Amino acid sequence: MLIEALPYITRFRDTTVVIKYGGNVLSGVSAADESEALRLFAEDVVLMRQVGMKPVVVHGGGPQIGEMLTKLNITSEFRNGLRVTDAETLDVARMVLVGRVNRDIVSAINTHGALAVGVSGEDARLIRATTLDPELGFVGHITEVDPTLLHRLLAEELIPVIATIGTDDQGQAYNINADTAAGAIAAALHAEKLVYLTNIEGLRRDVADPASLISTIEVQELAAMLEDGSLEGGMIPKVESCVHAVRNGVAKAHILDGRAPHALLLEIFTTRGIGTQVTNGGEFE
Amino acid sequence: MLIEALPYITRFRDTTVVIKYGGNVLSGVSAADESEALRLFAEDVVLMRQVGMKPVVVHGGGPQIGEMLTKLNITSEFRNGLRVTDAETLDVARMVLVGRVNRDIVSAINTHGALAVGVSGEDARLIRATTLDPELGFVGHITEVDPTLLHRLLAEELIPVIATIGTDDQGQAYNINADTAAGAIAAALHAEKLVYLTNIEGLRRDVADPASLISTIEVQELAAMLEDGSLEGGMIPKVESCVHAVRNGVAKAHILDGRAPHALLLEIFTTRGIGTQVTNGGEFE
Amino acid sequence: MLIEALPYITRFRDTTVVIKYGGNVLSGVSAADESEALRLFAEDVVLMRQVGMKPVVVHGGGPQIGEMLTKLNITSEFRNGLRVTDAETLDVARMVLVGRVNRDIVSAINTHGALAVGVSGEDARLIRATTLDPELGFVGHITEVDPTLLHRLLAEELIPVIATIGTDDQGQAYNINADTAAGAIAAALHAEKLVYLTNIEGLRRDVADPASLISTIEVQELAAMLEDGSLEGGMIPKVESCVHAVRNGVAKAHILDGRAPHALLLEIFTTRGIGTQVTNGGEFE
Amino acid sequence: MLIEALPYITRFRDTTVVIKYGGNVLSGVSAADESEALRLFAEDVVLMRQVGMKPVVVHGGGPQIGEMLTKLNITSEFRNGLRVTDAETLDVARMVLVGRVNRDIVSAINTHGALAVGVSGEDARLIRATTLDPELGFVGHITEVDPTLLHRLLAEELIPVIATIGTDDQGQAYNINADTAAGAIAAALHAEKLVYLTNIEGLRRDVADPASLISTIEVQELAAMLEDGSLEGGMIPKVESCVHAVRNGVAKAHILDGRAPHALLLEIFTTRGIGTQVTNGGEFE
Amino acid sequence: MLIEALPYITRFRDTTVVIKYGGNVLSGVSAADESEALRLFAEDVVLMRQVGMKPVVVHGGGPQIGEMLTKLNITSEFRNGLRVTDAETLDVARMVLVGRVNRDIVSAINTHGALAVGVSGEDARLIRATTLDPELGFVGHITEVDPTLLHRLLAEELIPVIATIGTDDQGQAYNINADTAAGAIAAALHAEKLVYLTNIEGLRRDVADPASLISTIEVQELAAMLEDGSLEGGMIPKVESCVHAVRNGVAKAHILDGRAPHALLLEIFTTRGIGTQVTNGGEFE
Amino acid sequence: MLIEALPYITRFRDTTVVIKYGGNVLSGVSAADESEALRLFAEDVVLMRQVGMKPVVVHGGGPQIGEMLTKLNITSEFRNGLRVTDAETLDVARMVLVGRVNRDIVSAINTHGALAVGVSGEDARLIRATTLDPELGFVGHITEVDPTLLHRLLAEELIPVIATIGTDDQGQAYNINADTAAGAIAAALHAEKLVYLTNIEGLRRDVADPASLISTIEVQELAAMLEDGSLEGGMIPKVESCVHAVRNGVAKAHILDGRAPHALLLEIFTTRGIGTQVTNGGEFE
Repeated sequence: MLIEALPYITRFRDTTVVIKYGGNVLSGVSAADESEALRLFAEDVVLMRQVGMKPVVVHGGGPQIGEMLTKLNITSEFRNGLRVTDAETLDVARMVLVGRVNRDIVSAINTHGALAVGVSGEDARLIRATTLDPELGFVGHITEVDPTLLHRLLAEELIPVIATIGTDDQGQAYNINADTAAGAIAAALHAEKLVYLTNIEGLRRDVADPASLISTIEVQELAAMLEDGSLEGGMIPKVESCVHAVRNGVAKAHILDGRAPHALLLEIFTTRGIGTQVTNGGEFE
Repeated sequence: MLIEALPYITRFRDTTVVIKYGGNVLSGVSAADESEALRLFAEDVVLMRQVGMKPVVVHGGGPQIGEMLTKLNITSEFRNGLRVTDAETLDVARMVLVGRVNRDIVSAINTHGALAVGVSGEDARLIRATTLDPELGFVGHITEVDPTLLHRLLAEELIPVIATIGTDDQGQAYNINADTAAGAIAAALHAEKLVYLTNIEGLRRDVADPASLISTIEVQELAAMLEDGSLEGGMIPKVESCVHAVRNGVAKAHILDGRAPHALLLEIFTTRGIGTQVTNGGEFE
Repeated sequence: MLIEALPYITRFRDTTVVIKYGGNVLSGVSAADESEALRLFAEDVVLMRQVGMKPVVVHGGGPQIGEMLTKLNITSEFRNGLRVTDAETLDVARMVLVGRVNRDIVSAINTHGALAVGVSGEDARLIRATTLDPELGFVGHITEVDPTLLHRLLAEELIPVIATIGTDDQGQAYNINADTAAGAIAAALHAEKLVYLTNIEGLRRDVADPASLISTIEVQELAAMLEDGSLEGGMIPKVESCVHAVRNGVAKAHILDGRAPHALLLEIFTTRGIGTQVTNGGEFE
Repeated sequence: MLIEALPYITRFRDTTVVIKYGGNVLSGVSAADESEALRLFAEDVVLMRQVGMKPVVVHGGGPQIGEMLTKLNITSEFRNGLRVTDAETLDVARMVLVGRVNRDIVSAINTHGALAVGVSGEDARLIRATTLDPELGFVGHITEVDPTLLHRLLAEELIPVIATIGTDDQGQAYNINADTAAGAIAAALHAEKLVYLTNIEGLRRDVADPASLISTIEVQELAAMLEDGSLEGGMIPKVESCVHAVRNGVAKAHILDGRAPHALLLEIFTTRGIGTQVTNGGEFE
Repeated sequence: MLIEALPYITRFRDTTVVIKYGGNVLSGVSAADESEALRLFAEDVVLMRQVGMKPVVVHGGGPQIGEMLTKLNITSEFRNGLRVTDAETLDVARMVLVGRVNRDIVSAINTHGALAVGVSGEDARLIRATTLDPELGFVGHITEVDPTLLHRLLAEELIPVIATIGTDDQGQAYNINADTAAGAIAAALHAEKLVYLTNIEGLRRDVADPASLISTIEVQELAAMLEDGSLEGGMIPKVESCVHAVRNGVAKAHILDGRAPHALLLEIFTTRGIGTQVTNGGEFE
Repeated sequence: MLIEALPYITRFRDTTVVIKYGGNVLSGVSAADESEALRLFAEDVVLMRQVGMKPVVVHGGGPQIGEMLTKLNITSEFRNGLRVTDAETLDVARMVLVGRVNRDIVSAINTHGALAVGVSGEDARLIRATTLDPELGFVGHITEVDPTLLHRLLAEELIPVIATIGTDDQGQAYNINADTAAGAIAAALHAEKLVYLTNIEGLRRDVADPASLISTIEVQELAAMLEDGSLEGGMIPKVESCVHAVRNGVAKAHILDGRAPHALLLEIFTTRGIGTQVTNGGEFE
């Protein structure tokens, strides 16, 4: 019943929550399932906004980019597991992220009203970037996030949906890791929460042991896990971003299983918190 | 010299000008030429903003869409010269317009500062649409333009750059003719001017006779030309939109040759007006 | 589940709802039950506010006034079932309404935060009144409602809780029927809804027949029932006020059984509407 | 003549003045005299507001509470001269303060326009309190004053009239000494002046000697008098509050004889300052 | 006593009053008397502002202009009693009005604080004018008053002091009759009152008979007196302006004897109204 | 062409520029030439405003004052080359500055629209002054500049034109050196630039050698030149003010030849900077 959520609604009113959505959440599911998952996710985001929160959606789109590159017969070289991004690849990545994945999310939200606005990191110089590694081409490293445009949209009670393309002063675009970008945006907005919707149920102390799922962890301990190499590859950008965000003013970071229906709502509005939460452990003021 | 432009700067301060750019302006030119033309166009738009005007850019992208469809081996059926747009084609059109053409224009403007924001007609339900003709698939007919988001961006002194994708209440996207959309947006904004940058030097009374170029024409006469069939096909959406816009509160509409460097500035800030201008001929208050 | 309420939350966001509470709802129950009922009512009001609605509470306090008069050994004369209100009685009525009933409601709401503000109709000349009938003494007839103070409090996201004492220009106070005042306040605020929480389950076509409960009725028909005398006495001020409010801009009026836990929430946020609703039947624009 | 007041009007424009009124001022006078005194007081407060000052009225009501307890045959125990306040007594105190004394003052002011708004310390959590001494029951000790609501009302050019009931987080009410509350409110508002209207002509160095009336005294010296026990009992809360207020940002505190007509105006707008004023003696910045 | 003025202060709060001062008021008095009269006038204006009114001062300066022309040995031709104003005379008139008379009034007011701002009708195109009569040279006829600048200054609680020089689009200045200008400014501001401070005690029905002083007159009757020629010459511009102003939204116009100390205050804040008042006689809404 | 100015327009948008104009610029030219020079100057100022800058004009009027004193047969004593200013001389100076020179500049600007507002340093206590040297009479030394009024006018996009008369608390006026006042106003406004339009082409290291013209100089070096006596007399107030302004937050000061048409525009909007510029040489933050 609605009334059970009242203390959480009161607690989180007017707070900003950055949600990383997409990519892996939906990999390997059918188009109909994907569409249904997006519909449920949109409901969660709209409800958060309706009860007075300020959700910001950040998305990636690796699988969709890969698919389009295949259709266009563009082959990529990989270095250390990262795709080398030449000008043609960048063009496709940007096109897919901004012109397809972003649009689908905006559309799903806007079936509930004039609520969402798609934003690229290029708009009003939101994400400034430079090259991460010359060998990787136009893969970007964030140098600055200017949240002015986001503050304006949030003040108008709109929901920004952000594709993580950055630019430099010459107008050169870069593809940015969406997990990293979500953390940097959450820090720049001094968000209350940063939530990663993933396709795993949370962090494990022992990757192989489901029983070792971590329910809550302080940022110091998580930083130690990053250093001692006990984390699997795909989680590293998320975990690094969680640590960065919590150390830069975000109150809590969460890693949830986005495949469960309404995972976001359950985490925020009930005592049935799920997945892993990262707290600042009293380390910071 | 700058001082020559003073009366025009004074006259057009705080006025909104909708500029249709793209597509045909650049068809058949080299990538370098296209990039240079875009650079000059961006300077014009930025200058307009710096002297206190409120420019709004609307763009199409037919050639770029066609090119991508070809690359993806998607063939299109045509009816009465119009491409039938099935779901797959729509997806490509949206991806190219929002994720490529729009981005290139935003990028070019933002080399001058945090000035431009890319917008799709789907954002905050800017362009509401329904199907134009069931036989044409997802080609859209505009039912309403809600300029709220544009007013917000203009109030922040930002330059909206609009890709003309519309939606209906169910979130279904439609591809909209950009010439038509530019006219509808200009009318919704009560713009002072609507400017079409094209690849011809203006309207001719006799299509075959360069000497019959029309310098200025009242909207009644232009409406008559539409009816008597004396206009060539490609110009019809532009001319219809000019008539619609001028009959709905836009003071003047212009059809210019966008291939000339700084055509926009010359038209607005000097007595050397070029191309064809459409006035309301005292018909409307 | 929360998500079920989403369409209602969206629908009623930013709308003003005037709720008449108190008096008969709780007559004959124990103090503990009364306190628990008030606690549940406060939760409903706070939740409405948290999801973006603007609740306004109006209350009476007939039983509590009667009780205090008894304690003070003040006896009242009655004419046509209405208590004659001399200066001493008025003083007690005002004291109990403003200093006890109002305070209890404000307190219950404010256990959730700094949300409610108690208001008497005397404050900033909210309710202007004159004598209803010289024989009844200081029983007031409303001549004007000035909602300025309420608009200010609502703009600050505060919840006004109103005791229905009115005044004239000389500062003479009057006791006002709370059902009537609720209707006048709803009309002055152009509220979306006016809700009466009562101790009956709704209106019946035949007072004696529980099966004749009216679920929905158009205002014209209800007005006819008022005239043909088919309504029982205690309902008449409520019904008159419903008719007045709906004929003056309030979209819907409701008569609910306030004894059911969370009756207010069930009515507003679910399809399980209860009690009787009065619609304008297309009569008015 | 008005012009004589000009320098004072200029000096005090936009300053906040907290005035403690009631209780002892009027004890032992006839109802007609009380009503006339209130009428004159209301004129003073309205005039202060009309010339650009921001008056805030704080009132007690000991005599009126005592009278009502007598009528209700409720007897009180006293400890150290303070009434033990059980739940029933608290209920009466709150009812009389908020529902009678407060209302009378608001009414008297509002004969001049929609100017005054009655406020209880419970509204929007204005006065937070806890128990002063378990033996005294619900007599409160102020833990915090949140002046947000007062700032809002003052910004709207309204005159807050405050009954000094406080609450804790569980919604439990407490009766607060009005002299103490006036000082705490003046400090929280950073008022320019705190004025006590009493039934004595001011402080005396020797209680028994009318010739020892103190015209002006520095806060340090007054604090010393508090400690050396040279003050009579009833003045102690006023004097403690004066010291507290002046040591917390209030520029001057005054103790005046409220029985003299327009004492307030004479003190503020003429050189004929009366009673005792407490200055900060250069002790604080 | 101040309290006597309270109802008038309440009545006139936030109202705009245009006061014509200068010229004849002071003609023939010593410099010391003139300076003392100005000091008293400044006090009145400052007091009006301090109690919440919005005074606007308009002044002429005929005697001072005449004196300067004499010193500069510039002789003037007169037609129908009006000075022919050639370019040189205009220059002197403007210099004396804006650079001397205006400055003296601003200075006198600003001894009370940063309150007054001198304004010429040329500033921000406040008074637009054209030639009144080619034979009179640069004597102006008002074509438009744009009160924007005055509204801005009044919103900042500043007191505009206006020298009545007008301009046309080419920047040509004109000398405007100050009585006429005061009326036009009062009408443009929708002032509550227009007050002429003169050197006579008011209008007389019979110029020769002091006993025929008119205390109050409706605008229709006054208009009739204008037409039947019963008014003496010097009063005609004042009376015409009173009629114009009252017929264009000004509630009352007054003609007072400015030589009496604090005439302005006595008229506005006491029942001892002096001079002649012109009412709209129910003629206009 | 306009586009060449784009980077400068972008760079100086929203910056405040104080321009000292008048006096020597025009001495010895014909009235027609003076009028033409003023017309060109007004164009420059209006253009600066139209492209988003905030120009503030400060002017002197020594030659015009001298001329008027001569006409009025008022002879002046001089001490150390400075005119002794008695009450009569001050009156003439104020009259000419505020009532003639100021008006001419305002008029010239306002032929382009409702843009300029004439201001005296007396208005709203803009320039506070005391006597510079008792022997010189009412020649003022600036004690404080209160830029509040200027900020208000600039916020309304108006152009203040300032006559440099100051006052003390008693309302006594003083004539202030306009070069000095311009520097103090620029410092108080934290202007981006302070520009002196003079009748020389800039500063020379060797007064006698045109080839020694200084194009750019750091403030330390310029301060040294002031001390070693290498500057000619008339330049000293300008140079002192440049040093003062740059040492108090003004980014750059310029000394230009105001006789060249559009000197101001050329300096600001082109690479063809002319005259001498003073930079802060990294000395200050």
